[in-house]
Amino acid sequence: MNPVELIIKKRDGNKLTQNELEFFIKSYLSGKIPEYQMSAMLMAIFFSGMEPEEIQTLTEIYINSGKWIKFPKRMNTVDKHSTGGVGDKITIPLAPIVAACGATIPMISGRGLGHTGGTLDKLEAIPCFRTDFSETEFREIITKTGLSIISQSKELVPADRRIYALRDVSGTVESLPLITASIMSKKIAEGAQNLVIDLKVGTGAFIKNMEKAEKLAKLLINTGKCLDQKVSVVFTDMNSPLGNYVGNALEIQESIEYLQGKKLPDIHKITKVLAEEMLILSGIAKTNELAGKMVEDVINNGKALDVFKKFIEAQKGDPKVCDDTSLLPQAKYQIPIIADKTGWVKEINSQNIGFALIDVNAGRKKLDSKLDYSTGAYLIKKIGDKIEKGEEIGKVYCNDKEIGKSVSQKIMSNYFLDDYKIEKTTIILKIIR
Amino acid sequence: MNPVELIIKKRDGNKLTQNELEFFIKSYLSGKIPEYQMSAMLMAIFFSGMEPEEIQTLTEIYINSGKWIKFPKRMNTVDKHSTGGVGDKITIPLAPIVAACGATIPMISGRGLGHTGGTLDKLEAIPCFRTDFSETEFREIITKTGLSIISQSKELVPADRRIYALRDVSGTVESLPLITASIMSKKIAEGAQNLVIDLKVGTGAFIKNMEKAEKLAKLLINTGKCLDQKVSVVFTDMNSPLGNYVGNALEIQESIEYLQGKKLPDIHKITKVLAEEMLILSGIAKTNELAGKMVEDVINNGKALDVFKKFIEAQKGDPKVCDDTSLLPQAKYQIPIIADKTGWVKEINSQNIGFALIDVNAGRKKLDSKLDYSTGAYLIKKIGDKIEKGEEIGKVYCNDKEIGKSVSQKIMSNYFLDDYKIEKTTIILKIIR
Repeated sequence: MNPVELIIKKRDGNKLTQNELEFFIKSYLSGKIPEYQMSAMLMAIFFSGMEPEEIQTLTEIYINSGKWIKFPKRMNTVDKHSTGGVGDKITIPLAPIVAACGATIPMISGRGLGHTGGTLDKLEAIPCFRTDFSETEFREIITKTGLSIISQSKELVPADRRIYALRDVSGTVESLPLITASIMSKKIAEGAQNLVIDLKVGTGAFIKNMEKAEKLAKLLINTGKCLDQKVSVVFTDMNSPLGNYVGNALEIQESIEYLQGKKLPDIHKITKVLAEEMLILSGIAKTNELAGKMVEDVINNGKALDVFKKFIEAQKGDPKVCDDTSLLPQAKYQIPIIADKTGWVKEINSQNIGFALIDVNAGRKKLDSKLDYSTGAYLIKKIGDKIEKGEEIGKVYCNDKEIGKSVSQKIMSNYFLDDYKIEKTTIILKIIR
Repeated sequence: MNPVELIIKKRDGNKLTQNELEFFIKSYLSGKIPEYQMSAMLMAIFFSGMEPEEIQTLTEIYINSGKWIKFPKRMNTVDKHSTGGVGDKITIPLAPIVAACGATIPMISGRGLGHTGGTLDKLEAIPCFRTDFSETEFREIITKTGLSIISQSKELVPADRRIYALRDVSGTVESLPLITASIMSKKIAEGAQNLVIDLKVGTGAFIKNMEKAEKLAKLLINTGKCLDQKVSVVFTDMNSPLGNYVGNALEIQESIEYLQGKKLPDIHKITKVLAEEMLILSGIAKTNELAGKMVEDVINNGKALDVFKKFIEAQKGDPKVCDDTSLLPQAKYQIPIIADKTGWVKEINSQNIGFALIDVNAGRKKLDSKLDYSTGAYLIKKIGDKIEKGEEIGKVYCNDKEIGKSVSQKIMSNYFLDDYKIEKTTIILKIIR
């Protein structure tokens, strides 16, 4: 087979066969096909798309490029994937809640880069917490506590890791077939038999509208079906940062407070609906109503927090943070964010807020940047809320006052106001299975 | 500027500014932008296209990446470019004819690769003929004989040379804006103030239909206009191999016979119309009628053949070949091509015939393959001609009988017949300036 002929075949809108896709990906991984032919192929896929069968094949090639962790069918393992957003800490309370209801959650997660935070980074804000376990330890922690969250080893889907890195530098990230294969291969290779996807839609997300979101959801569900994984997609509005805190230790603190029973409307809405879907897919609850009741129960009776403690302990972290959040890393200074205008919040550019917080090292600029777990922001205003000039609308947590002040101003400049009242937006837009 | 952002900008259908294009191409040439980003950009251009202004800018960047040979305005230099085809020897008789009529032709030409032959290869079939002259020698030969045909030095449009090599292996050759910049930059940098383009259209050419051909013609003419070069495009039918001979020395022999006055209808039609356009563009003739008369005259009175002899001599070749073509390399064997079916020729796959002749080393498989100048084929049947089973329809010239026999069969299998009479096709489809 000739690589150029395959690029031209895809460029001209034709379907690649299983043999052709396998030849192309394997030759790339073994170095026989150079980066410049792979990037041309990725751009051709961006424009010409892929048929469902091709996406399924690509996903399988990704999975088979590395280890495939499998759990016995009877365990009915379930995981959740989020397409990512600023302040998205949902996995942290969600996983112990669902485990407390009896589900088994094998979760392999990532670190943050650019404006989005990573679940692993947040968990590592807990003193001594580790995420670098072997497959055997991963299985042991799951058996003991019902869940484990670890980092992706080099043995898992190496094809996706290499191709993702190339997509990132060749302008081919935003391709639905490539996104599908990337998400699904990782979530299947980690051993999840069921998967709930939190698909963020809106100006702040990389999927800007419902039409594109529905296309992606169909590809994800269809690919899951072909590879024996049940998938449910929850479309959520991604226009305000989630909860009131952004920053690693701050989001752990907020998650603990939520598990302790604190009312946090937007976090609760998303967590509950994702938990319900996870419990239904994994056969633990029959209806959303019953599942919802289970979720409320394990929060109210402290069982979810208890699972969270055991999970932290099993992953070598200090579970005492759940009783005393002051054990988490603390920033020296809190700089108030003062409103410089009056009006109703029409839009919040969460992405820019995420980027601004890189200045206090709450996020990473480069893959090897060192994080400051203690820093971040407290933000109380959501879309539709009123802001008065001079009012304190939040705080920047920092260890350098001057940088903190500049971040505070940057954050303020990313709130866009209107001078008339605005409807509050719905968080849950749609669910499809 | 960020290369990925520029790739995405083009991918999403936006126009790149002059600064952006310059940054991208120059950074690529200096090694700061890697091959995989350039190939992704080329594929994005393939799909998103380029506006006329972008193509003009790209052409200028290509030209300015190397030396720009300029001739005084009063010389009214003129050149011809062909998009290439099997048996396309037209440059060889055309250049001396036009020079004999008083035009000045600075021509930088290429070698053949794959199924198409190169003008330089054909000329080098003449004993001792050289094409590796310096710019000063190039100018001297032109002053002395009215024309010179040399090979592209590394100093001319290096940007195009590097990008063309990458297009070839990344499936991005067939992009009209990239084709335009590639042709025009070379033809402007060599110093041609006027240019006639022989644009081959048809199943055997890389431009398959008139719609695409007209688009390309407009881009070529428009780019020429912006860079002070007058362009005329002649659309020719590329469905049968041109003339009766394919092969390096064989095509020189056929060109000499044509200049000696032999009637070769298809060669004459194309040569005449291209010559007319060249004479009109360079201001030597006012109308096609007058130009046509001049062409007929210089063939009939031997002036064109005389210029050809002087040109061969100036380029160190043996001009005696013009009086005795047996001085050209001769193949040992002539293997008849015998028809294995009866019918009217509906289609000839010239491309495959070109590929078949690589077996007797008449063409190159790889850039460094060594040619056998003596080999090739004699083919008498054109589209619309009748063939009788058992009839000799041509010959293979070879130095190995067995290979010659297999090539003879391969050639026969690329004639497709119908059992009813077929209309002969027109060679000249259209001319636009």
